[in-house]
Amino acid sequence: MFLDATWDPGGMAPVRTPDPEPGWLSSFALEETRSRVPILYVEAVPVRVDPAGQVESVGLLLRSSETTGSMTRTLVSGRVKHGESIRDALVRHLEKDLGPAAFPRLPSSLVPVTVAEYFPLPGVTPLHDPRQHAVALVYVVPVTGECQPRQDALELTWLSPEEVSNPGLLAEMEGGRGALVRQALAWAGAMGW
Amino acid sequence: MFLDATWDPGGMAPVRTPDPEPGWLSSFALEETRSRVPILYVEAVPVRVDPAGQVESVGLLLRSSETTGSMTRTLVSGRVKHGESIRDALVRHLEKDLGPAAFPRLPSSLVPVTVAEYFPLPGVTPLHDPRQHAVALVYVVPVTGECQPRQDALELTWLSPEEVSNPGLLAEMEGGRGALVRQALAWAGAMGW
Amino acid sequence: MFLDATWDPGGMAPVRTPDPEPGWLSSFALEETRSRVPILYVEAVPVRVDPAGQVESVGLLLRSSETTGSMTRTLVSGRVKHGESIRDALVRHLEKDLGPAAFPRLPSSLVPVTVAEYFPLPGVTPLHDPRQHAVALVYVVPVTGECQPRQDALELTWLSPEEVSNPGLLAEMEGGRGALVRQALAWAGAMGW
Amino acid sequence: MFLDATWDPGGMAPVRTPDPEPGWLSSFALEETRSRVPILYVEAVPVRVDPAGQVESVGLLLRSSETTGSMTRTLVSGRVKHGESIRDALVRHLEKDLGPAAFPRLPSSLVPVTVAEYFPLPGVTPLHDPRQHAVALVYVVPVTGECQPRQDALELTWLSPEEVSNPGLLAEMEGGRGALVRQALAWAGAMGW
Repeated sequence: MFLDATWDPGGMAPVRTPDPEPGWLSSFALEETRSRVPILYVEAVPVRVDPAGQVESVGLLLRSSETTGSMTRTLVSGRVKHGESIRDALVRHLEKDLGPAAFPRLPSSLVPVTVAEYFPLPGVTPLHDPRQHAVALVYVVPVTGECQPRQDALELTWLSPEEVSNPGLLAEMEGGRGALVRQALAWAGAMGW
Repeated sequence: MFLDATWDPGGMAPVRTPDPEPGWLSSFALEETRSRVPILYVEAVPVRVDPAGQVESVGLLLRSSETTGSMTRTLVSGRVKHGESIRDALVRHLEKDLGPAAFPRLPSSLVPVTVAEYFPLPGVTPLHDPRQHAVALVYVVPVTGECQPRQDALELTWLSPEEVSNPGLLAEMEGGRGALVRQALAWAGAMGW
Repeated sequence: MFLDATWDPGGMAPVRTPDPEPGWLSSFALEETRSRVPILYVEAVPVRVDPAGQVESVGLLLRSSETTGSMTRTLVSGRVKHGESIRDALVRHLEKDLGPAAFPRLPSSLVPVTVAEYFPLPGVTPLHDPRQHAVALVYVVPVTGECQPRQDALELTWLSPEEVSNPGLLAEMEGGRGALVRQALAWAGAMGW
Repeated sequence: MFLDATWDPGGMAPVRTPDPEPGWLSSFALEETRSRVPILYVEAVPVRVDPAGQVESVGLLLRSSETTGSMTRTLVSGRVKHGESIRDALVRHLEKDLGPAAFPRLPSSLVPVTVAEYFPLPGVTPLHDPRQHAVALVYVVPVTGECQPRQDALELTWLSPEEVSNPGLLAEMEGGRGALVRQALAWAGAMGW
């Protein structure tokens, strides 16, 4: 009943992997809440690193948008639930988007690489979410295992810092997330110069 | 009408300075929202710095709790409103808690010193808020002007890093915020060793 | 006597403002030291910020290179002397390069925006210094006063994040420092998107 | 010939594991260099983390001082060589101090947890190195394998955040490094409160 096109408790995309615990916040309650307060998200930029920690490639998810039918690239992303810690939310969304064998290495500090502000009105920041005012804590997360994107995510593509720095590719990312990829690369000293 | 004991749209304390724009979220709507999602806050540790940027003293607010009648020390703290940027929320709460002549120097980066998680159940983290699950982005903010705490905050006390590192003082801070002061001092390289 | 073309105790550029305390390390001693250990530098990206801390413009120094005769853009930059603290080195080089009325706001934390590694051999990193292996701690420093570049620096130009993100301009910066400007903008959430 | 008590190219301690490439800088050259410029170091706080990245324990090295005969606790620490990258220096010193099976997870960003300044004169900062002015980039490094301290380090002890926060233990650490452990714990949100 709530699984219509607008039901999206755990994700930021118009279409998203259903949460493993559906029904924990009804579509109506979520919509109402979204009109009242900024919604807290976590986002992760999956990376492969060499033994010295240097970023070698960045993982982007390819997803088809139900509303527009087009394919867009995005990051691991999802809402922090009531009562859930930020670390638990990160673990949950990494597993939901990358599968159970990705073996992510979560950061030792909760200080994010950047704080992303999405507003429903386009143009306030480079980031935009038509559904809500969202604030995301963004982390770079090395993954060492095999990634198996689930359900609506068609694939995870690993790109070198040079490849991922392509302005056209970054400009087309969902919600303006190309800006977050740039910030993650700058933080890691792995810009595709 | 909304100015009863539970009305607290802008702050984290049981008693708090009324928001300059009252009524923007009713007591009922806020309570309901608090049961559904984590609530996003900003907090600021006011500091005085020397010309080379080194922290010389830390400002703590002294506030009387309406529910317990006791005095507690706390930080500048308040909610981010729907549609409000993090920078605007910081400016608003710094002015609300320190007055219009404090002349705070806001950070150039939104990356916080630490991310604070408050849970309604005590003991999950050192931080605790009986009213809600809150997540706060914590910043160190040098202030250069004269601070005039408003309304329910009785005074702002400037303490040296040595004085503020007193374990007894830190242990008595509102909601466990002594932990945030420690983290701020460690980040600034100004621990009272 | 030591004021020949290679004498450069305080700076990274082939030509640089003479240090206010000349002679503290002879040209010979400096050259010898440079062949033995990495040399520690501090660098500052001067910025103008709005009252909410958001970066509005970035200051680049224009300097003529004695060896090539060409003009290059660069950052505030200089060596940390033996016995000198990082904060004191930052204060000294900001005053040397921006003049005594720049009124820089030094950071409260010594954690840099990025750590820059310059190698004498080109291509190891995007950064390059033919004279030495240098490691620089890079900070973003808001300045509020009037900047008067001294001696060999012809001018300080304030550019908006959009203007300074021009790939051609960044590519021509001294020693590859365009990469540092990109990292500083990403850290400040002020990329010229 | 250079393997006398003062020969110490790779470490900060009066007695230290000999470098795997001895002779690359003579004792005389190193002493001379130390009188001329600050010497760049890397330091690592080894930690064990849970699957969500939370620090569970901190590893301290126990070492006997040749000059005093007493035992002191310290961190992984060592000099960055001429021409060596910071990442390579970290890998080298982690292997030297923890053995080849420690499997450290190096950070994706070179931005350190803190920058430590050691001066030869005691009291300038909480940190002190009688031999030199040193500046260390300090990182928190999760290790997943088995640690086998080599040669002069007698053992590596894993302590919980509570145990390692013991003021007496921290006060006795070599060169004042207890301050760095505090800063690392604060950064990781793992203070022993």
